[in-house]
Amino acid sequence: MAPLRDPALEEISEALHAAPGAETITRLSAIDAVRARILLAIEHRLYAPGEQLPPLEALAEGLDVAPITARRALETLVEDGALVRRRGRGGGTFVAASPPQIQDSAVNVFRADEDAIRLLIDQRCLMESALVAAAAERITVEECDDLEALVDAAEQATTWAAFHSADRRFHRRCAELSGLVEATSYQTTYEMLARYFLPYPLDRLGGSHREHRAIVEALRAGDGSRAATTTREHVGSLRRDMFMALPR
Amino acid sequence: MAPLRDPALEEISEALHAAPGAETITRLSAIDAVRARILLAIEHRLYAPGEQLPPLEALAEGLDVAPITARRALETLVEDGALVRRRGRGGGTFVAASPPQIQDSAVNVFRADEDAIRLLIDQRCLMESALVAAAAERITVEECDDLEALVDAAEQATTWAAFHSADRRFHRRCAELSGLVEATSYQTTYEMLARYFLPYPLDRLGGSHREHRAIVEALRAGDGSRAATTTREHVGSLRRDMFMALPR
Repeated sequence: MAPLRDPALEEISEALHAAPGAETITRLSAIDAVRARILLAIEHRLYAPGEQLPPLEALAEGLDVAPITARRALETLVEDGALVRRRGRGGGTFVAASPPQIQDSAVNVFRADEDAIRLLIDQRCLMESALVAAAAERITVEECDDLEALVDAAEQATTWAAFHSADRRFHRRCAELSGLVEATSYQTTYEMLARYFLPYPLDRLGGSHREHRAIVEALRAGDGSRAATTTREHVGSLRRDMFMALPR
Repeated sequence: MAPLRDPALEEISEALHAAPGAETITRLSAIDAVRARILLAIEHRLYAPGEQLPPLEALAEGLDVAPITARRALETLVEDGALVRRRGRGGGTFVAASPPQIQDSAVNVFRADEDAIRLLIDQRCLMESALVAAAAERITVEECDDLEALVDAAEQATTWAAFHSADRRFHRRCAELSGLVEATSYQTTYEMLARYFLPYPLDRLGGSHREHRAIVEALRAGDGSRAATTTREHVGSLRRDMFMALPR
């Protein structure tokens, strides 16, 4: 499926990125969006104090931005004292030992999008469960094997970016296997939501892999109802776990 | 479910009503939106040349606008020669015998939303089929009877407005019966799409009633897969029949 570049969809997407209630539609720059996502990851201890961040390229890929954008965002966060940079062997970029509570306007814009994000999660949840239910009625053994290979790829990922890429391919493939024309719209919803994903540490993703495997098992059994229920649980975990709902 | 008045959702909705690609977001006034919907209904022969329009109150209710808004829109269309008004017994508002082809900016804005409308239809299609599949697993005999009563109400409707109201209640009830929290998001999608509905003549709605009955039958049989498939066909007909796809 080609990436959606339709002007109407762009405007929907822009509205989703806008600060609700603002007099004018304020869209975050790519740098500010990365700042917000990293600050929120730190705030919610997805990155613990003192923890090393992934290499720049992996971070940029995981957040779907250019490396230059990620580098500039990191530089501003070093200036703010949220991150520290250490040179030499064992060096890199680390979360500060006691990162300051930053009242960041970019973070506030993200927080203000909470309701729109929940709408997107609910949309994805229902759309994806309908797609896998349809896929269960027509999927072949070989296609199930292909899906399982994508689950393996996600599980073997050593960076969040690699996980995110495998996860995206898994869900796209499930949608395609439904054979429904609506799969393209689902893809739009998935991609809108992906712009809000925070770079989870890999050790938080065990549940995701188990759920992916359970979806493939249900598809293999031709059990559309179970595939739908499992998908609902899988996407539903975003409602609990995405940044705005994480326990402080 | 309370109507959604969230600022973020309002902005999404505004984006959907905006002309894509426009430098600034141009939102149609309520009067212009009614103008556009009636002109499109005439263009696609949902209202035939010479046909009488429904009474003002019924038209306004069907289009979810205030009677004053509908009246002003009708007045501009009389001025343009698309409609004619006849006084006295047997009088009322009629489609002109040979309505002029109007290059109306409001119609153009509506047409320009075509891709966004298709996105909404696809979202509704998937979301609704997931909801009825879930409803099939828990619905009671009494709840099926209640749904059937709503289908009867839709079938007995003598105005498009009465049909539209019964249709809305039917789909809302199906969503609620799923017991899923995501039903509220579905409702948002349904309502966004409803703003684009054209006032179909009642004799075009036979298929809709049959599909509603088939959905209730599948729910009664506890057959989630069939309920989902039937719902997909029902909503999918919008993709063919809504104004932008109607054969000229």
